Amino acid sequence: MMAVLARSVLVTGSNRGIGLELVRQLAASPWPPHHIFATCRHPEGPRGKRRLHDLLEPSSPLLFAPPDTVNVPSIQGAVRAVDSHLKDQGLNLLINNAGVSSHATLHSLDSQEMLSVFATNVVGTLQEFLPLLEKAAKGAGKEGLSCSRAAVINVSTKLGSIGLCLGVLQAPMYPYRASKAAQNMVTRCLAVELQEKGILCAAIHPGWVKTDMGTEEAPLMVEHSVRGILTVLASLSQDTSGTFLDWEGNSLPW
Amino acid sequence: MMAVLARSVLVTGSNRGIGLELVRQLAASPWPPHHIFATCRHPEGPRGKRRLHDLLEPSSPLLFAPPDTVNVPSIQGAVRAVDSHLKDQGLNLLINNAGVSSHATLHSLDSQEMLSVFATNVVGTLQEFLPLLEKAAKGAGKEGLSCSRAAVINVSTKLGSIGLCLGVLQAPMYPYRASKAAQNMVTRCLAVELQEKGILCAAIHPGWVKTDMGTEEAPLMVEHSVRGILTVLASLSQDTSGTFLDWEGNSLPW
Ligand SMILES: NC(=O)c1ccc[n+]([C@@H]2O[C@H](COP(=O)([O-])OP(=O)(O)OC[C@H]3O[C@@H](n4cnc5c(N)ncnc54)[C@H](OP(=O)(O)O)[C@@H]3O)[C@@H](O)[C@H]2O)c1
Ligand SMILES: NC(=O)c1ccc[n+]([C@@H]2O[C@H](COP(=O)([O-])OP(=O)(O)OC[C@H]3O[C@@H](n4cnc5c(N)ncnc54)[C@H](OP(=O)(O)O)[C@@H]3O)[C@@H](O)[C@H]2O)c1
Repeated sequence: MMAVLARSVLVTGSNRGIGLELVRQLAASPWPPHHIFATCRHPEGPRGKRRLHDLLEPSSPLLFAPPDTVNVPSIQGAVRAVDSHLKDQGLNLLINNAGVSSHATLHSLDSQEMLSVFATNVVGTLQEFLPLLEKAAKGAGKEGLSCSRAAVINVSTKLGSIGLCLGVLQAPMYPYRASKAAQNMVTRCLAVELQEKGILCAAIHPGWVKTDMGTEEAPLMVEHSVRGILTVLASLSQDTSGTFLDWEGNSLPW
Repeated sequence: MMAVLARSVLVTGSNRGIGLELVRQLAASPWPPHHIFATCRHPEGPRGKRRLHDLLEPSSPLLFAPPDTVNVPSIQGAVRAVDSHLKDQGLNLLINNAGVSSHATLHSLDSQEMLSVFATNVVGTLQEFLPLLEKAAKGAGKEGLSCSRAAVINVSTKLGSIGLCLGVLQAPMYPYRASKAAQNMVTRCLAVELQEKGILCAAIHPGWVKTDMGTEEAPLMVEHSVRGILTVLASLSQDTSGTFLDWEGNSLPW
């Protein structure tokens, strides 16, 4: 693995799937971040930190904060915890990984489900963590954009590409697709808005990965996907802020 | 204006702005649709049908049904009213025009506002009217796709183009942009899914138009925009189903 990706990294939805593997690989790297915030919404539940702890050394630089991405007070609590832990250095890298899928077809679709998928996948944690990212960007003592300075990475999906519009008849998934297209819009607008503040933003498609969401049918192992994602993140710069890349660094159409 | 665009047309949000002008021009055409359903959510209110009636001949083929696009029972009531009015012929053209804007910036953004904009702009009326469109497509006695056979037109906006990502710093409008990107995804998925049923789907950008939403600053008169939209609708075919066009027929990137 590469040298230190970022001094501090926060990953949402890190109790299982891609989020868990992101934390595992970050912590296991020869130059791990100084602070890894592995957040999940039910740290004490059966899906909570136990699985994380099983995987990690007891000395790992982890801190648990419990944001439910649709619960603003819980996010704000996490922001305060992270801020006080980091003292005045700000957060370098926010990976918005938590997400839900939905198998609704056009006929089974209901507006409540549509809105709850939007609430998790689009609204997210973006706004609350911004002051911590701004702090990191300002204090970094370097120019240009990078994940080591300050970045928001939104975990998106190829199914959220309107241009590709892949396999609709096999997997209609309207709420999931629409929510990820909306999230992509937010990513790109953020990239424009936050560029002058020194914060990079990008959307990453992890591939179709064997996780609870991806199912056993998926061709990609989570280790492989996450190794690719972390390599791509390390390569991001001014030129790739605002883009939509897959885990191998290929550019995807909106 | 062109020959009859469609035997029956339903326009949502038709009490003012672009929706009102769509109904006016359709009704005033030398070959008007046999049935125009000019729907709005408060037909008895001050913004309701009075303004429509002032503009139209008393003999105009109008029927009011009151869907609030976020109120499913009200949409279902409208569907029943429209269905019984059309007897067994189905609805040829559904124009989802009702929409709300939002001027929220990244800092003023709140998740409730985001979700309420999504509820109006994305969830819409799509599902409930589908059986009526299918009926029209089947009964049309012609092949291929067109607005005269069966079509869903979603009124979108250039601000919903992720590829263009226009003027973010001047007009952040995150909830509006994200909702319209999500709506564009739905349009394109619908086009794929409904093609074999003989139903055309497309997204139309009306231009920046002088309406309550567009404000007086907008360069385009609503008459001009709507004349363009109706010309574009009449030209749509198999080849343009699933595309994103502006009122002049130019293709826009997703
Ligand atoms: N797997 C794939 O093939 C694939 C492909 C493309 C994109 N993705 C994207 O990759 C990301 C991770 O997916 P995954 O495959 O790792 O999925 P996963 O195994 O189902 O894990 C989802 C994670 O998100 C968390 N989460 C869901 N809703 C949440 C909420 N409201 N608040 C906080 N956390 C929430 C879950 O926490 P709980 O355990 O508490 O539910 C869990 O940690 C998602 O954004 C997904 O859309 C996955
Ligand atoms: N004007 C522009 O420059 C421009 C540019 C690009 C795209 N557009 C799009 O064009 C469409 C029409 O815009 P406009 O300029 O005519 O806007 P407008 O003058 O503000 O009219 C909006 C219409 O939508 C209706 N509406 C809003 N929320 C609704 C809901 N929940 N249920 C039912 N009806 C609802 C309004 O009804 P009430 O009177 O009851 O509120 C009104 O009839 C919108 O989709 C908009 O996004 C406009």
